[in-house]
Amino acid sequence: MTSLNTVHAPALGKRMEPAEVARLFKPRSIAVVGASANPERFSGKIIPTLLRQGYQGAIYPINPSRASIGELPCYPDLASIPGDVDCVVYALAAEHIAGVLDQCPEKNVRLMVVSSAGFAERGDEIGDQLQQLLVSKAAETKVRVLGPNCIGFINLIDRACVTSAAALSWPDIPSGRIGLVSQSGGLGLASILYGALEDGVSFSHVITTGNEADLDTIDVARFLVEDDDTDVLAMTVEAVRDPDGFRDVLKAARRKAKPVVILKSGRTDLGKTMAASHTGALAGSAQVFESVCQQYGAICANDIDDFYQIASMFAKLRRSGKLEKLHAPARQCAALSISGGHIGLFADHASLEGLAFPEFSVETKRGITEELGFEGNFQNPLDTTARTIGDDGFWGRCTQVLLNDERIQLVVPIITVARSYEPAIRDFIRIAETTHKAIVVIWAGGDFAGEARKLVAESNIPVFRTPARAAAAIHALNTYCELRDHANSFTQGADADAAVSQALALLEQSQTGSKGALTERESKQVLAALGLPVTLEYSAEDEGTAVAAAQNLGFPIVLKGEHPDVLHKSDLGLVFLNLRDEDEVRLAFRSAIQRLEAAGYSDGKVLVQQMVSAGTELILGITSDPEFGPVVVLGLGGIFVEVLKDVSMRVAPFGRQEALNMIAELRGGALLNGVRGQPAIDREALADLLVKLGQFAYAARDKVREADINPLVLDLNTGKLRALDALLVLKETRQKEVVKEGA
Amino acid sequence: MTSLNTVHAPALGKRMEPAEVARLFKPRSIAVVGASANPERFSGKIIPTLLRQGYQGAIYPINPSRASIGELPCYPDLASIPGDVDCVVYALAAEHIAGVLDQCPEKNVRLMVVSSAGFAERGDEIGDQLQQLLVSKAAETKVRVLGPNCIGFINLIDRACVTSAAALSWPDIPSGRIGLVSQSGGLGLASILYGALEDGVSFSHVITTGNEADLDTIDVARFLVEDDDTDVLAMTVEAVRDPDGFRDVLKAARRKAKPVVILKSGRTDLGKTMAASHTGALAGSAQVFESVCQQYGAICANDIDDFYQIASMFAKLRRSGKLEKLHAPARQCAALSISGGHIGLFADHASLEGLAFPEFSVETKRGITEELGFEGNFQNPLDTTARTIGDDGFWGRCTQVLLNDERIQLVVPIITVARSYEPAIRDFIRIAETTHKAIVVIWAGGDFAGEARKLVAESNIPVFRTPARAAAAIHALNTYCELRDHANSFTQGADADAAVSQALALLEQSQTGSKGALTERESKQVLAALGLPVTLEYSAEDEGTAVAAAQNLGFPIVLKGEHPDVLHKSDLGLVFLNLRDEDEVRLAFRSAIQRLEAAGYSDGKVLVQQMVSAGTELILGITSDPEFGPVVVLGLGGIFVEVLKDVSMRVAPFGRQEALNMIAELRGGALLNGVRGQPAIDREALADLLVKLGQFAYAARDKVREADINPLVLDLNTGKLRALDALLVLKETRQKEVVKEGA
Repeated sequence: MTSLNTVHAPALGKRMEPAEVARLFKPRSIAVVGASANPERFSGKIIPTLLRQGYQGAIYPINPSRASIGELPCYPDLASIPGDVDCVVYALAAEHIAGVLDQCPEKNVRLMVVSSAGFAERGDEIGDQLQQLLVSKAAETKVRVLGPNCIGFINLIDRACVTSAAALSWPDIPSGRIGLVSQSGGLGLASILYGALEDGVSFSHVITTGNEADLDTIDVARFLVEDDDTDVLAMTVEAVRDPDGFRDVLKAARRKAKPVVILKSGRTDLGKTMAASHTGALAGSAQVFESVCQQYGAICANDIDDFYQIASMFAKLRRSGKLEKLHAPARQCAALSISGGHIGLFADHASLEGLAFPEFSVETKRGITEELGFEGNFQNPLDTTARTIGDDGFWGRCTQVLLNDERIQLVVPIITVARSYEPAIRDFIRIAETTHKAIVVIWAGGDFAGEARKLVAESNIPVFRTPARAAAAIHALNTYCELRDHANSFTQGADADAAVSQALALLEQSQTGSKGALTERESKQVLAALGLPVTLEYSAEDEGTAVAAAQNLGFPIVLKGEHPDVLHKSDLGLVFLNLRDEDEVRLAFRSAIQRLEAAGYSDGKVLVQQMVSAGTELILGITSDPEFGPVVVLGLGGIFVEVLKDVSMRVAPFGRQEALNMIAELRGGALLNGVRGQPAIDREALADLLVKLGQFAYAARDKVREADINPLVLDLNTGKLRALDALLVLKETRQKEVVKEGA
Repeated sequence: MTSLNTVHAPALGKRMEPAEVARLFKPRSIAVVGASANPERFSGKIIPTLLRQGYQGAIYPINPSRASIGELPCYPDLASIPGDVDCVVYALAAEHIAGVLDQCPEKNVRLMVVSSAGFAERGDEIGDQLQQLLVSKAAETKVRVLGPNCIGFINLIDRACVTSAAALSWPDIPSGRIGLVSQSGGLGLASILYGALEDGVSFSHVITTGNEADLDTIDVARFLVEDDDTDVLAMTVEAVRDPDGFRDVLKAARRKAKPVVILKSGRTDLGKTMAASHTGALAGSAQVFESVCQQYGAICANDIDDFYQIASMFAKLRRSGKLEKLHAPARQCAALSISGGHIGLFADHASLEGLAFPEFSVETKRGITEELGFEGNFQNPLDTTARTIGDDGFWGRCTQVLLNDERIQLVVPIITVARSYEPAIRDFIRIAETTHKAIVVIWAGGDFAGEARKLVAESNIPVFRTPARAAAAIHALNTYCELRDHANSFTQGADADAAVSQALALLEQSQTGSKGALTERESKQVLAALGLPVTLEYSAEDEGTAVAAAQNLGFPIVLKGEHPDVLHKSDLGLVFLNLRDEDEVRLAFRSAIQRLEAAGYSDGKVLVQQMVSAGTELILGITSDPEFGPVVVLGLGGIFVEVLKDVSMRVAPFGRQEALNMIAELRGGALLNGVRGQPAIDREALADLLVKLGQFAYAARDKVREADINPLVLDLNTGKLRALDALLVLKETRQKEVVKEGA
């Protein structure tokens, strides 16, 4: 119930096989250590819950001061139980943990569920020590631990509901096809489970991991991806502590064609503290996380109810075999309602979500005319008007007409007012079985607790309560289909090629200043090896060389004062643009050196650079995400990046399709097509550059902290991209510097 | 149940007084013409509904073929009823409407509710004729009509529930403090009513207006604003047919300090068809509508459930007297939960909505430490950890501690897992009565149908199901408070001053071409009278005059070929920038004239203009919204307007505060503060200009179709704004042109 997790146990070794994790959550016998006879107490709720939900295995209450709890005999300790115990529920105060774990090997205990709080989430030394004790004892006794500070788990397939959660007070909770793992018990076994059950959605498993001293989200997710009773993996995510494991889960789910739906909490502000450059300041973990989901086709839900409703939609469509047959553009849809108000509302939200309503074919129009009994100008979505209100069969017949239209992939009947609802729902269920296309119902009227609604909730037809929710979910469906259909993109690009090797070699040879940065010139040389087109330029230490360099390049030129410790030259007035003759170069040289000296840099040089006639500006860079490591960031430059933070990003490395997606995701991307007479930017060339930069970022992930290519401009003379400035900041030296400053 | 409304009746004269409308919806007797004994039929549901909801007035079923319906005696016709009938429900086929209306005067009928479909919403001639007949007969018989094609109304205060809606099948529906008017019956009396009742939200009145042949949304809204049983006006809006009436309702609600919550459906694409200029293409009705709501402080909800939940929050806060005492920034809030997952989720959504979580004061931290029983680094929102789970009184005590903090206006307890919920809820209700600050509960766990939840739903404490919904609602609350506290802004600026008069006079004298447009020069002269700073420029018909003008202005200059029928000069290559000497001017003059001639304009001239060293670009204009009339549009120019459509707008006229808000609403507004060494743009001067342009747009609303000041730039020499180009297009001539083309 807290996100604090200071003591975690990678010490327990490599991850368990999913099949073994599955066995943990399917115990043949359960002992509750500290079982209470008072059902008001949390320790008193576990056994009644097991019984209420129909658990068939052995249940052993352990309580030395009682002979029985309910009809079950009590045992004074684990050792007194005859035979083995698969699962122990720990319901005592935190300080007794070691003693109980010590008794486990004798009974061949596999899993201990620690619901108790009082461990690391306390945030003090006592809590840390107790959690550390739990971790080492668990390793020693070879017992796997769920928790502490979790609310247990429920396996609704095998009826093993090992939890004190109040949502389980409803009897005979049906099982569903969604597997949910949630670090937060309050989200997983309270809010999400309650809300879902009220809306007719259920789960195969709900597993809460709490402090994750041992088993964590990734262990559980790996099992759920392989689980045959689970069609959809639903995860709540606070922090990603094992980014590689997280990405492996997403990849595995994709291989199994199992949708992953995520509720992310604790999204933070842009990671300001990690920023020494513009690029760094733009990479926040939240956006990095979203880009990882985007890359692997996982769906991020916005709120608790969207989360389980979208998961339910995917589960129904996968189970009924429709998901595999729906292909992008599944966004070609039709909707029908007798309520113009609802048609308007759904059209609004659907168009905001990018869904399309293709014009009906001539045959479809004819079919609608026959069903409605009058001619009309039939628009999609279809307002059937109230005249159909007394015709129970109309809904099914009209939906069938729309499904027959080959331009339409998905039909959305919006149910509001009807004489009776059941005939329509029965028709939908019947029709859905005869088509590979999807029917998604918006249930916006009629008794929500009534029979018809129950019928549709229990069917394989997704149902939503409001137009906005349905539109968001259909958008998620399209996103899933589109990403799945581009599934090749993440397998590419993991190998560094010759260019990357050369860039790495140049990086090795380069010098850094006290701030860990390479000079502009050296930064550009490294990046040029990756294929980054840079300005022609010369380094000069004296006025004469500077003038000769300028004459060599041809006027006008740019002169910049540079020093490895000056990361932002403009701040010190070291950039002199548009110098037109020798005199201007001499003057600029002297100013640059003087300004460097005034700022305390006595060993400065200048860089004499060709002046580029620049069009559209981009910004390109590498930053280090605390969770996912190296991230490549692309943005529109100048005012776009300063004012609008219009950037896209990907965790490195990534393939070509992902690079193209990055470019397409820029809000102001239309600029790349050429504005105000400028030529278009070559997206293919830019994608190549992004892929190589990603390979380099990954290969140099232990060395490079940040790269900032800013600006990368369209050179109007050549029509190609060119980097006017670049900065590489390394990790190691930087840390030394911090130590030095701190000393 | 449809949005088609082709036949409407402004013919019925000026609007009824709200008090008279109130009488219509409080009938002492009700006759149902066409009452059926079959409760499965819509015409058979009305009388059982009245009885079930406890209507105390007289009920008269009219059905010539039956002696009684239930326990009520039947009458063959209206005339047979003893005494007067306040309200008639028409439940026959459309074609009998005239005959029934003819019988009404004799019985002093005030209101006829026409639920039947088959009128204008058919979209054919028969429907139009029947609706026209209804309109004329209603006028003749002086009967006010609700509908046709509505689902009636419910007055839950006086238990007059005159509807066939199935939601009314629940017995004893409680009354609430929200007055809802909905053109769409499917939205009003199906989706919204069902959803709200399930969530414990109710209404004073729900009135559906259907085709609005007579009484319309505005008539009903005017009554609800004045109604003492109504704290909040909730409206679903499809099209606004009486924009002045709509604005008057919003103004009246503001005077009564009654929040207005709106669900808008049928938002359309940007109004492309109305565009002859850039400005025009950017003004879509949806954005205009939102700007009107923004201007008058009405809240637009995003979806059906947000709509009634936000309305409920306002109703509770107003009724308990808190709303008037909450002042911006009411966005200073605190939240607390035992679930870290929920804290994270709420913090995310709250920060996306712009809410702030001030740091706790020293006293508050001390208070929390005492309540939690341990020291901690207490952040806001507060993660209380699971250790408080067994302490029933903790919630109330901790909420009280947070309310005592003077930095905090609003406290949000997030309820997830608790041993029992009732003690906390009772504490909240008690505490809420002793403070002017607000408590808003997120009920994210616990049995939703249980006692505790019912308790909070029925209290004056707003309750939401998920963090995202609560955050959106608190944002709406802040918006309301902020707009209310700037309440002076819409009273200003209605009078045209001398500058506007002068601009109008110049407009009268100006010449337009065949497309209704003034030349750039004349457009600028009109707008300059409003205080718009324009470029210095001369018109020239021959080369010599052009050269003299250039010399007079000083090089470099700009030369443009112009003709009243050429609306976009760049398209014809008529703009010559940066001309540096006499020769260049001569060359440009000849090219301009030749190009005009080549395009068929033999009587062209040139405009010789000062060359402005331009910084940040804006775009400013007037467009005509089909609903609200003249609209002033402000945008960031260049790529911002082309690529990002970053504009704000207001219906003219408006006051100074609104003008400043328009400027503040620009997403890229940071550009105005000066970027890249440019001076800031004078927001006060820009606001003055916007106000005057609004006054002019309103005063000239029958004449001006569009104005396009593009670009309006920051003149880097003077640091002030200057219009480089301008275009005025008039209405009248334009229409002539269309006729001519059509002929």
